[in-house]
Amino acid sequence: MDEHWMKLALTLAESARGQTAPNPMVGAVAVKGGRLVGSGAHLKAGTPHAEVHALDMAGEEAAGCTLYVTLEPCNHYGRTPPCTEKAIAAGVQRVVIGSLDPDERVAGNGIRRLRAAGIEVEEGVLREECLRLNEAYFHHRKTGLPFVTLKTAMTLDGKIASVTGDSRWVTGEEARHQVHRLRHEHDAVMVGSGTALADHPRLTTRLPGGGKSPLRVILDSRLRLPLDSPVVDTAEAPTWVFCTQEADEKKEQQLEEKGVRVFHSVPGPHVDLATLFRILGEHGILSVLAECGGELNAALLRGGWVGKVMIFLAPKLLGGKESPTAFDGMNPERMDEAIRLQDVRVESFGEDWCMTGYPDDRMDGEGS
Amino acid sequence: MDEHWMKLALTLAESARGQTAPNPMVGAVAVKGGRLVGSGAHLKAGTPHAEVHALDMAGEEAAGCTLYVTLEPCNHYGRTPPCTEKAIAAGVQRVVIGSLDPDERVAGNGIRRLRAAGIEVEEGVLREECLRLNEAYFHHRKTGLPFVTLKTAMTLDGKIASVTGDSRWVTGEEARHQVHRLRHEHDAVMVGSGTALADHPRLTTRLPGGGKSPLRVILDSRLRLPLDSPVVDTAEAPTWVFCTQEADEKKEQQLEEKGVRVFHSVPGPHVDLATLFRILGEHGILSVLAECGGELNAALLRGGWVGKVMIFLAPKLLGGKESPTAFDGMNPERMDEAIRLQDVRVESFGEDWCMTGYPDDRMDGEGS
Amino acid sequence: MDEHWMKLALTLAESARGQTAPNPMVGAVAVKGGRLVGSGAHLKAGTPHAEVHALDMAGEEAAGCTLYVTLEPCNHYGRTPPCTEKAIAAGVQRVVIGSLDPDERVAGNGIRRLRAAGIEVEEGVLREECLRLNEAYFHHRKTGLPFVTLKTAMTLDGKIASVTGDSRWVTGEEARHQVHRLRHEHDAVMVGSGTALADHPRLTTRLPGGGKSPLRVILDSRLRLPLDSPVVDTAEAPTWVFCTQEADEKKEQQLEEKGVRVFHSVPGPHVDLATLFRILGEHGILSVLAECGGELNAALLRGGWVGKVMIFLAPKLLGGKESPTAFDGMNPERMDEAIRLQDVRVESFGEDWCMTGYPDDRMDGEGS
Amino acid sequence: MDEHWMKLALTLAESARGQTAPNPMVGAVAVKGGRLVGSGAHLKAGTPHAEVHALDMAGEEAAGCTLYVTLEPCNHYGRTPPCTEKAIAAGVQRVVIGSLDPDERVAGNGIRRLRAAGIEVEEGVLREECLRLNEAYFHHRKTGLPFVTLKTAMTLDGKIASVTGDSRWVTGEEARHQVHRLRHEHDAVMVGSGTALADHPRLTTRLPGGGKSPLRVILDSRLRLPLDSPVVDTAEAPTWVFCTQEADEKKEQQLEEKGVRVFHSVPGPHVDLATLFRILGEHGILSVLAECGGELNAALLRGGWVGKVMIFLAPKLLGGKESPTAFDGMNPERMDEAIRLQDVRVESFGEDWCMTGYPDDRMDGEGS
Ligand SMILES: [Zn+2]
Ligand SMILES: [Zn+2]
Ligand SMILES: [Zn+2]
Ligand SMILES: [Zn+2]
Repeated sequence: MDEHWMKLALTLAESARGQTAPNPMVGAVAVKGGRLVGSGAHLKAGTPHAEVHALDMAGEEAAGCTLYVTLEPCNHYGRTPPCTEKAIAAGVQRVVIGSLDPDERVAGNGIRRLRAAGIEVEEGVLREECLRLNEAYFHHRKTGLPFVTLKTAMTLDGKIASVTGDSRWVTGEEARHQVHRLRHEHDAVMVGSGTALADHPRLTTRLPGGGKSPLRVILDSRLRLPLDSPVVDTAEAPTWVFCTQEADEKKEQQLEEKGVRVFHSVPGPHVDLATLFRILGEHGILSVLAECGGELNAALLRGGWVGKVMIFLAPKLLGGKESPTAFDGMNPERMDEAIRLQDVRVESFGEDWCMTGYPDDRMDGEGS
Repeated sequence: MDEHWMKLALTLAESARGQTAPNPMVGAVAVKGGRLVGSGAHLKAGTPHAEVHALDMAGEEAAGCTLYVTLEPCNHYGRTPPCTEKAIAAGVQRVVIGSLDPDERVAGNGIRRLRAAGIEVEEGVLREECLRLNEAYFHHRKTGLPFVTLKTAMTLDGKIASVTGDSRWVTGEEARHQVHRLRHEHDAVMVGSGTALADHPRLTTRLPGGGKSPLRVILDSRLRLPLDSPVVDTAEAPTWVFCTQEADEKKEQQLEEKGVRVFHSVPGPHVDLATLFRILGEHGILSVLAECGGELNAALLRGGWVGKVMIFLAPKLLGGKESPTAFDGMNPERMDEAIRLQDVRVESFGEDWCMTGYPDDRMDGEGS
Repeated sequence: MDEHWMKLALTLAESARGQTAPNPMVGAVAVKGGRLVGSGAHLKAGTPHAEVHALDMAGEEAAGCTLYVTLEPCNHYGRTPPCTEKAIAAGVQRVVIGSLDPDERVAGNGIRRLRAAGIEVEEGVLREECLRLNEAYFHHRKTGLPFVTLKTAMTLDGKIASVTGDSRWVTGEEARHQVHRLRHEHDAVMVGSGTALADHPRLTTRLPGGGKSPLRVILDSRLRLPLDSPVVDTAEAPTWVFCTQEADEKKEQQLEEKGVRVFHSVPGPHVDLATLFRILGEHGILSVLAECGGELNAALLRGGWVGKVMIFLAPKLLGGKESPTAFDGMNPERMDEAIRLQDVRVESFGEDWCMTGYPDDRMDGEGS
Repeated sequence: MDEHWMKLALTLAESARGQTAPNPMVGAVAVKGGRLVGSGAHLKAGTPHAEVHALDMAGEEAAGCTLYVTLEPCNHYGRTPPCTEKAIAAGVQRVVIGSLDPDERVAGNGIRRLRAAGIEVEEGVLREECLRLNEAYFHHRKTGLPFVTLKTAMTLDGKIASVTGDSRWVTGEEARHQVHRLRHEHDAVMVGSGTALADHPRLTTRLPGGGKSPLRVILDSRLRLPLDSPVVDTAEAPTWVFCTQEADEKKEQQLEEKGVRVFHSVPGPHVDLATLFRILGEHGILSVLAECGGELNAALLRGGWVGKVMIFLAPKLLGGKESPTAFDGMNPERMDEAIRLQDVRVESFGEDWCMTGYPDDRMDGEGS
């Protein structure tokens, strides 16, 4: 039965994907005598934790209940009082936890507090699912850096556009819909200025029924981004531009007048990725969807910044030696330099597929 | 996206199965700008409706949200104010409904009220699933009678016990666990005095992690039930006994002293099923799990009282002309008198199976 | 690749199911340089073995080929010369065998002969499938007795007919078609005189496109079978009747004039099953499909004569204490006397199912 | 039952894939009274047709049988007498045909002859499967040209090698095994001199248990192929080289001394594909597996010569603007010039996948 209720807690947590940063997704379920007496999810930073929703719904029934929660309850005073104290005060009898918080400074404190108060605690029910749920959050807690999902769309022969840059459309409607879903679920989306200039993307989430547009992060060393670019229109979503020291000050000022934030990277010809991700991490960005071209993709992958790769494949052949491919910026000499993907799974979206995997050499953000 | 959120509402509703009578199971989800802002389920009669939980969790975010609810919101003042008024006051912009309440006196009133207040209403999203969810409630609303699920366990050759009445055990542990799950999910469980006398069942729900024991309903024309029968111990669960007019008054008094309620059927040799189900229905019993023997099963099926049949089948052969079968009380002369089951599905529990189907001739409780 | 070609040999062998008795089903494939050069199946006793067909088709290509055969090639002079000599003479280079013949007097002789002639031999490729293919033949070789498949059709509550004996029809058209397919695949079909008298079955195979009708075996202690019974019409298929010593001599003579063979069992009130199966086995009957009633079914099962059970289940409920069930002749006192089925599998035929399993206590024909 | 037996005939036909050119694969099964009496496949040009094997095996049982054959029986005197006459002489009663020969000059003649002789003929049982089985043969009959399957192996980002040409290995062992299987099944394999020079492939079939090596076809405009190239060693498999008019006569002579056949294309800088495929078709080559590089692949696809595409995909990322891709020779300006694949199916081989599809614009060999 523990797995039965933890699954419900996982479903609740997952329902808030994309809206909880910098907090993790968490679901909680309160059960008493085999009866559901409360349920909840953490919805947004600054609002109550999942446990609070579940215990509030339970009311007096919370006394003597079992509380299922996908992540170890917090034990520190933040914007809200600790959930451990809430559980103790409510008279919870047993707490079942999906996964500990891997952050060593935190892990186990919640459990110790609960046990000290005489509450029975079980840990590790559906642990794998609970860890996978918050892979971005855990990565951020360990490294201070966001979890980067590199997404690209290509023809079956690896082409992301024609030589003229034409890429409308590689994939069909269902796959493109899924990309908007991914934007909704990520805290930030990231492109280089090349992509921003060539494709004029808005990088917003356009789903039937709305959806949260992510922070738009543009790498633009020399601030080439025109003021009439769709991403400069910050009414729809916030935009941050990262440039180098040499960028034009007047342009910077113009962008900022339009609401764009401009960040300067360390000296050098290109925007320094370590600086960029450090800044994003410091601002509570847990997850980044990189929708870049072949040069930036290569820099991300080679640098070990990529946590996950999602490749949308259309069943068609474009060809062309000059038609760009997704990792043009790499310079491999031998086939065995290829980076393997692990735990690959295939999904279909209309006539297209999406292959998702984890790069073999990912360095947990300590990219070279 | 509407189906995505309605599925979450269905999952929430389903999580409270067995605990909401006489109310239906209902789940609600509030979504704003593609973000989950509230969720809830109706947990127990007399406590807030699902919509109230969801809107309370949403708080100020409720203004402008879309509210997904598996059943048309109520529009009458009961123990709680109507959910329609709550939604209007909260500023909900759109309401998406799974199914109407089939009760004609109610159906559509909630929708009309919402529309009159300028709220956009859509109806019928995942309608089939929403109707199936509450098949017992809808049956009760239409007929005033509980929805009866006839459950039995037999060997592959149809035997429910040996000639001596030995039935321990027909099926294995996993199937028997599932029966306890079914007891938790039903408002009442029902047996005849023969079964109560022969097998001394407790008829309670014994699941790891608890579970709600159903009301125990015993058909006992002449009050033969001994005072030390496990079902007379009402500390575990309530027990109602139905007898005929002729039953012994002293025994009745003794039973009542032990906390058992005793009901008298209309004059006649047997407990009248129409009376019994009418009384159960009047007391807010929506669902009954009948775990009876061959005589009572036959009376239930022949009378058209059975809404659903669940047969647990063990892969073994017992044989015996005198070994009882599940519907011994029938007297068919021709094979074409057999009652067909519709929409049959097969599940496996350990080495056993469960076949579930709907009798062809079910009469929605207007049994003869 | 060995499994690839053995699968083809299995398919060929299986295609002749029902027509090879008293020989086993055997398939053979000859392959040379990765190319198919011959294929064949044993089709009928007295005609060439599978290896002969395959090597004949191969002609000169047989020299140097690999011969795949589902069963160890024969090494004795019977109606045909041994296949080992044929393979040696043809210059076969390698022989791949699915299963040995479990008969200890035979097993391994073929392999030894081939090896002595310098042929490479591999054994055990897809062994399980090859053993299952000929379960009847192997049983007969070990015990001298036929392999009995007990087949019955019942409602979901275990009833094979109404109290009046009406059993038309328990199952639907597709399941009944499958029974005709089973008759085609068995060497004999067996019923008691009760069934023959009550249902007037023809017990022939009636499939679109024909099919082989099995030998009809009737257990009729006192020769009650009327002369106008459909099974006495031996133009369609042969009929053997087994009676006791007391049977009427004149009736016996009348039956024999109609082409029916009459066998006398050892003294006793009933036909002795040991005698019956010994006689069938001696006459090269490998497989018997028992389509009997509850008394005879019980005797077969209790006696350990049953190798396999096939139960066709219709999704309907008949009921009736007096409606017969499939093993009425058993007298179990306790549920744990039930006979478990092993390796149960479920298939569906139209709206009906068929459960097939192997009785736990089967005694390989050493029935009491 | 007709489908049951036709499936067996299809299995038999399929078993001879790769060995029947220029003839089609054909399987035949003879059935009498529901019993298999003969079976066979066409194994090799110049040897008996499938029908002959089946009827020979049937012997006297052929009289009155039903003959199942995947392709309309021949009605003309070739290397063997027509199968129609054989069937008529044998007394076949009914012929069931999978597909007609689409060649209009032939189609229906066999059927007409059979019907004129009083044989009942049914056509179209499992037609789709029978047509798909011989897609190469039918293409050749209609156009005189071979059916070309373009096969390539690439990383998930579309790279077939590194910039240095290193391609050992893109895919894993199981996928490479499957390529050898494909070589066995095709009449010819085809590469350009670039591939032959860079990779030194042997282009033979190396499977456990042997396999037929295909004809090796090398496009080598100026006869650059060195005499010590593995493909010049014609002991393993025949090799045909296609060059232009300008090729060196002395080199041509040297190649021919080694057993290589040299063909001259029409005047022009490159080998003319129309000439090449016409010559292959005239020599009875029905199927070609093209294992070429990006230039030749492009010429094949653009010219409409490709009937089927098989792409083996390895789950890894290589990158590199200069790393070649599979169709480098194309020059598309717009994404909508991409060629869609139809009826795409995905199979997995170890960790790799294979996507197979049919180009949308295939021109049945009338390439420009
Ligand atoms: Zn907390
Ligand atoms: Zn309400
Ligand atoms: Zn033999
Ligand atoms: Zn022919």
